[in-house]
Amino acid sequence: MAHLLSASCPLNVSSCSKNGPNSLKQSLASLPTSFTSRTSVQPFKNLSLNRKNAQRLFSIRATTLQQPGTKAGSGSDESSGQQSRPTRVMVIGGDGYCGWATSLHLSKKGYEVAIVDNLVRRHFDDQLGLDSLTPIVSIHDRIRKWRSLTEKDINLYIGDVCDFEFLSEAFTSFKPDAVVHFGEQRSAPFSMIDRSRAVYTQQNNVLGTLNVLFAIKEYAEDCHLVKLGTMGEYGTPNIDIEEGYITITHNGRTDTLPYPKQASSFYHLSKVHDSNNIAFTCKAWGIRATDLNQGVVYGVRTAETEMHDELYNRFDYDGVFGTALNRFCVQAAVGHPLTVYGKGGQTRGYLDIRDTVQCVELAIANPAKRGEFRVFNQFTEQFSVNQLASLVTKAGEKLGIEVKTISVPNPRVEAEEHYYNAKHTKLIELGLEPHLLSDSLLDSLLNVAVQFKDRVDTKQIMPSVSWRKIGAKPKTVSA
Amino acid sequence: MAHLLSASCPLNVSSCSKNGPNSLKQSLASLPTSFTSRTSVQPFKNLSLNRKNAQRLFSIRATTLQQPGTKAGSGSDESSGQQSRPTRVMVIGGDGYCGWATSLHLSKKGYEVAIVDNLVRRHFDDQLGLDSLTPIVSIHDRIRKWRSLTEKDINLYIGDVCDFEFLSEAFTSFKPDAVVHFGEQRSAPFSMIDRSRAVYTQQNNVLGTLNVLFAIKEYAEDCHLVKLGTMGEYGTPNIDIEEGYITITHNGRTDTLPYPKQASSFYHLSKVHDSNNIAFTCKAWGIRATDLNQGVVYGVRTAETEMHDELYNRFDYDGVFGTALNRFCVQAAVGHPLTVYGKGGQTRGYLDIRDTVQCVELAIANPAKRGEFRVFNQFTEQFSVNQLASLVTKAGEKLGIEVKTISVPNPRVEAEEHYYNAKHTKLIELGLEPHLLSDSLLDSLLNVAVQFKDRVDTKQIMPSVSWRKIGAKPKTVSA
Repeated sequence: MAHLLSASCPLNVSSCSKNGPNSLKQSLASLPTSFTSRTSVQPFKNLSLNRKNAQRLFSIRATTLQQPGTKAGSGSDESSGQQSRPTRVMVIGGDGYCGWATSLHLSKKGYEVAIVDNLVRRHFDDQLGLDSLTPIVSIHDRIRKWRSLTEKDINLYIGDVCDFEFLSEAFTSFKPDAVVHFGEQRSAPFSMIDRSRAVYTQQNNVLGTLNVLFAIKEYAEDCHLVKLGTMGEYGTPNIDIEEGYITITHNGRTDTLPYPKQASSFYHLSKVHDSNNIAFTCKAWGIRATDLNQGVVYGVRTAETEMHDELYNRFDYDGVFGTALNRFCVQAAVGHPLTVYGKGGQTRGYLDIRDTVQCVELAIANPAKRGEFRVFNQFTEQFSVNQLASLVTKAGEKLGIEVKTISVPNPRVEAEEHYYNAKHTKLIELGLEPHLLSDSLLDSLLNVAVQFKDRVDTKQIMPSVSWRKIGAKPKTVSA
Repeated sequence: MAHLLSASCPLNVSSCSKNGPNSLKQSLASLPTSFTSRTSVQPFKNLSLNRKNAQRLFSIRATTLQQPGTKAGSGSDESSGQQSRPTRVMVIGGDGYCGWATSLHLSKKGYEVAIVDNLVRRHFDDQLGLDSLTPIVSIHDRIRKWRSLTEKDINLYIGDVCDFEFLSEAFTSFKPDAVVHFGEQRSAPFSMIDRSRAVYTQQNNVLGTLNVLFAIKEYAEDCHLVKLGTMGEYGTPNIDIEEGYITITHNGRTDTLPYPKQASSFYHLSKVHDSNNIAFTCKAWGIRATDLNQGVVYGVRTAETEMHDELYNRFDYDGVFGTALNRFCVQAAVGHPLTVYGKGGQTRGYLDIRDTVQCVELAIANPAKRGEFRVFNQFTEQFSVNQLASLVTKAGEKLGIEVKTISVPNPRVEAEEHYYNAKHTKLIELGLEPHLLSDSLLDSLLNVAVQFKDRVDTKQIMPSVSWRKIGAKPKTVSA
């Protein structure tokens, strides 16, 4: 029964199979000795117990050991009288958009970082025929380049947090002080493609997070969980959105309760489920947790990822994984009209990816108390889709690009004109210094889009997933 | 990918294996021709695709066809000008405690009933060494006895709603007008035994319900979903509990939002996740749904189950599946002290199982509108644990039984003294006539316990599952 999840995730199986025994041996054979001697590999774990001759499933764990020369920066606990020891941070999903930028930022700041990732995000691109606007290299090459530039090591555990045996290994060998959990299927449209993707999204996200909670309880009970939630958990209520909790007076009595949630996709719902599960374990087990209800992230460059083109972050502009502002910039760069869904009055919180990494570090540096379930709304400014389109149009003019905007039928089920006022003061109180969306930032975003515009596949831009038309049958993708 | 879930549920596999090819053939061979000719069996579906020589998984579908003589009662739509046709109700989990009583009640009332069940509840008893206080016969014998007594057929689909291929078959062949969904792991302590049971509970409940929603959308979009939720979704807030929604005025603005949830076990959380998922599909797809937030059910006899001892309902008194009042009556009957957890001020809503079946029928007879997510609080009276202990003590005196009460350390994490005032008017407005917990009812409950007291295994009475001590490692049960 401990292997319940190991056998349940074909996407993970497939992604592992790609790095199967033969290809792994070959790639190890071609590595310089200095790398292979620092890598421990366990390629042949048969997780499908009691099934003779069944197809073997396996996890790969390629742990790069800590270099003796690693220096501790702000991640070390220099304030204590003890010998300085860097805070150890496990970044689950550290190969993804937010995860990679965060991992480098924390490593630069002197934290001891381990990336845990099953690389399924790259697998989704393969399956759906998508690609990052920016060329990205393998996670192994990324980490090697980082080491060569900074003399800082990042530990790497390739595997799936839904596989508790793998996760236990990662926890007991790395011994994290904090876990940053980005390791979820993070696209609302992906979760609305078909039944199997809807089920996969909730299975992967909810059960993966349950495993992380059990791993903390079992192996690192003082560890601080920093969990990526989403502002989309709240929906668009007709009252102000608070940070996680609201004080309600009703029939003469008063209580402070979890803020009501109204999520609007199977993905957003999975984050609501996570929040509820985590809140319970804080109360029942004394887990310390921070839920970062993040807005829509834009931008691609951070101080660390722009150090070298092999450190580039991914940049999604397609209809499945692309977020609104990033997609608009690419559309402007290639002369595609900006595609506003419906009336364009949809208002959300936004933030620069340089603020994402800042917020995560602030959460780690100021951990929640034992038993505390702390919720931060992680965004810096609110915009409607129409406002974004207008900003991109103006920025385009400065670069001599003529930008047009069209309204396309809204593939989602959402209010297109609504009240929206969400609080976001807690991270500011901890010291967040926001990068606001000024024209210069937009220029920089637009410039990246222009730089790589020859890599754009315009067929991927339009929305292809309908909230209402999702069916039970698997949806396939043609070439 | 369509088989994602089929291969992921070893408990289901095991329960199916018990009724495997050999035993199934044997039991078919011993059946009278009149039964076998009415039974279609598909025992050898290999759901483990692309795995040569893997252990075969399979679903059994044993559909008893409708007898020509079946008569329609209140379940028929006699009010319309069309020829009378009974409303077709699929009861998922129809072999369980609430499900069996409900199935018979609906069949008696003239509804055309299909039971969908994977029988995993019986499997849990086998695994944990538990048994119902009342002797219960197989689902097949139950249905045959019902037919012989009433000339009414109940259709039977043995399989798992987490297996979408099976569920699709059940939907397309039965064509339900309403689906009553009891088919979930329903014990809070079970979900807190160990990590694998916690994960199983959320996987089975949340993903099973997602499949049911997709089946309705795909095959029966006008079908009314009647989903069993729990009053435990609300927790114990310091304000009045409303039925599903609360109107909040905040900073000068007002909105009616989902009532905040504070569930206190992985089981209760799974029901919160379900509620959120269902609410979204009502909005996005126009699903019509009624969420029955049920209190703690007591009692065992209904008008239909007492017609014959082969129609007996199950009665759980153990520390895992036994509910408070039922357990107290068994303790009184065998001279075991009533075990109050902690201070005993824990207050909850309670109802007689005869009201459960009434409420479900009222919900079916008065369906939600398309797109409506309707929430009913399904209980009739509130009691604290101490009040229940006092009532059982007094009832025991009338039967000449001396009843003692002890406080045991609370295995749960919950408030033991708290405000509790939950609304429950919507079902009353639809016509519910409650069976209140008077002394006479208690006598009847106690009498059942006394009747079967020789079947009591006193080792099963004490709580064995701790909310705080739950571990990641599988918990095994000794003989």
